[in-house]
Amino acid sequence: MTDDSLSTPTDEVGDALATSTSEASLARTEQRSHEIEAQIAADPSKFRVMTGDRPTGSLHVGHYFGSLMNRVRLQNAGVDTFVLIADYQVITDRDGTGPIAERVRGLVTDYLAVGIDPGKSTIYTHSAVPALNQLMLPFLSLVSDSELYRNPTVKAEHEATGGRPMSGLLLTYPVHQAADILFCKANLVPVGKDQLPHLEQTRVIARRFDERYGRANPDAPVFPQAEALLSSGSLILGLDGAKMSKSRGNTIELRMTADETAKLLKRAVTDSDRHITFDPVNRPEVSNLLTLAGLATGRDPRAIAEEIGDGGGGGLKRYLTEVLNEMLAPIRARRAELAADPGYLADVLAAGNAKANAVADATLREVRDAMGMAY
Amino acid sequence: MTDDSLSTPTDEVGDALATSTSEASLARTEQRSHEIEAQIAADPSKFRVMTGDRPTGSLHVGHYFGSLMNRVRLQNAGVDTFVLIADYQVITDRDGTGPIAERVRGLVTDYLAVGIDPGKSTIYTHSAVPALNQLMLPFLSLVSDSELYRNPTVKAEHEATGGRPMSGLLLTYPVHQAADILFCKANLVPVGKDQLPHLEQTRVIARRFDERYGRANPDAPVFPQAEALLSSGSLILGLDGAKMSKSRGNTIELRMTADETAKLLKRAVTDSDRHITFDPVNRPEVSNLLTLAGLATGRDPRAIAEEIGDGGGGGLKRYLTEVLNEMLAPIRARRAELAADPGYLADVLAAGNAKANAVADATLREVRDAMGMAY
Repeated sequence: MTDDSLSTPTDEVGDALATSTSEASLARTEQRSHEIEAQIAADPSKFRVMTGDRPTGSLHVGHYFGSLMNRVRLQNAGVDTFVLIADYQVITDRDGTGPIAERVRGLVTDYLAVGIDPGKSTIYTHSAVPALNQLMLPFLSLVSDSELYRNPTVKAEHEATGGRPMSGLLLTYPVHQAADILFCKANLVPVGKDQLPHLEQTRVIARRFDERYGRANPDAPVFPQAEALLSSGSLILGLDGAKMSKSRGNTIELRMTADETAKLLKRAVTDSDRHITFDPVNRPEVSNLLTLAGLATGRDPRAIAEEIGDGGGGGLKRYLTEVLNEMLAPIRARRAELAADPGYLADVLAAGNAKANAVADATLREVRDAMGMAY
Repeated sequence: MTDDSLSTPTDEVGDALATSTSEASLARTEQRSHEIEAQIAADPSKFRVMTGDRPTGSLHVGHYFGSLMNRVRLQNAGVDTFVLIADYQVITDRDGTGPIAERVRGLVTDYLAVGIDPGKSTIYTHSAVPALNQLMLPFLSLVSDSELYRNPTVKAEHEATGGRPMSGLLLTYPVHQAADILFCKANLVPVGKDQLPHLEQTRVIARRFDERYGRANPDAPVFPQAEALLSSGSLILGLDGAKMSKSRGNTIELRMTADETAKLLKRAVTDSDRHITFDPVNRPEVSNLLTLAGLATGRDPRAIAEEIGDGGGGGLKRYLTEVLNEMLAPIRARRAELAADPGYLADVLAAGNAKANAVADATLREVRDAMGMAY
């Protein structure tokens, strides 16, 4: 039993959230991620992965190398994979939903194009899964308002909105994310370091639910303790050397054509040294393009740099254009086919939503049993 | 168009919540309640009432005279009536759900015993209606954290918990109450003065939803502006002259026997003046018993006081015991019959939950349409 129930002082929990990104904690999480990878190789059926995206734009090569490839790898290794399109997260910090249906369809298209297989993975939007959203209610009873404010991601997202009043949805967003993870009893969540506090909040909610409300089946808690699978990939920058972001126009989206890709790469920032070397600290832009080329080819970026040698930024960009377009060609061909068949995309999403609803309904039944609310 | 969207200064809304209990505003609400009563008499089909209780104990004569009689009156006048058993509200400010299933069953029994007719009214628990609870998500995007803190009822309830950390569920409780009212598009909510700020928050959420997310049908907002039907009944005190409350043991519950009622009334507080008069200011305890006797018989408490004259507290209590037990006898007989048939009670609740789910699913479809989330 831990002592982090709501009616005890909550500083320990606040500390747990804040220190989940400390160096020692990070080192433990990295070590644990390696162990988990070995366990997946031995028996993938022990794991259920929850992952997903906000439908705020098209997926790009940063997403591809940073998370999509990993999802496809886990799925194909036999891990049951839930891929959430987090449509309610779109309105945590903006006034409207925008062209949300188009963006959701775009995400489904991207997912299938990169190899997420709807026969193996479940693709769904949380707005279509009422029993998932209902978990917000019992979960909100398990956190205090001060814990919500101390969540580093809520703080950061609120600061990014530039003084806009904080919506109740942004404030309670870590609780909704706990519902996203726990409705399907996911025990594995691929995350970057900055998302560890969210995952810690989810673990706290799962523990407190067990302590406060008990169990449907006396032998096991209703909810597992979800673990982080830390992404090992290096950070990919935008083509201007800044953070990759759709609004900066510095990304190569999966949906772009080969020509659009070539044009964008021509404008990519490099530096004045014609001799190409891989030196992320002193030459971040050039090294970033080499990293991309390395990821696209499976080669060492240093070897690519040597090969290009005095070919300069131009030579590097030509090489990257070629290998990236080659790698993306089958994905784009598949993407074009899929985009031409909106009925199929709608069917995939409907089937994923139906599966997610069945899972959520079963979990909610257990939750209501545990809480004595099965009348 | 009002200017109370989330991104504008929210002080006006805060003021609206705070001033909804001002004298001028109260006078307007009272006047409007009279108009509504006239409209109900003319055409009850224009109204849908949402009302209900937390399942934290048994209903007593305070509930009966203060709200149950009124619900039965509205129902029998032909107003479509939704009676919510607000089971998630039990955990806003306490650590467990307690004997919740027993209390829910007790409430259903009380409702049917006093004449709420499941053929005319819909009785349900909100924990059984996922689409209702999902409305929390879009609604939370429409309120700011500071508005939540300024809600006078949240403040009061938090102060009543004596320094216990505020749970996320208590903080967001006005938003959940908006979902309770709006899921069935109720346009009429019988309330006491102290609940007017909640209703105002619900009206604000309905307006903002229309401004921010628009409509499913261009001709009408998804949600109506719910109006208050102010209860006109006088406040009934406990038998000790304090606020009526189960934990003080100063109430007469509908489920009690005639003997238990007589015993409790014998212990009721009066005063040393043997001559009985109706004088609420100077003789609150005696006048409270006279009020109860008046409500039980439909007589003027002053006339009852005159009749008892020098009979003293003993005479008053004997009279009240007789008339209250007489009035409660058929309710108690019906209650005993119902309590002996738990299968029927479960059926009534299941049917009410099914009806509430159908209504909530239809509303959620409109909400998702308006938000562009019908994929």
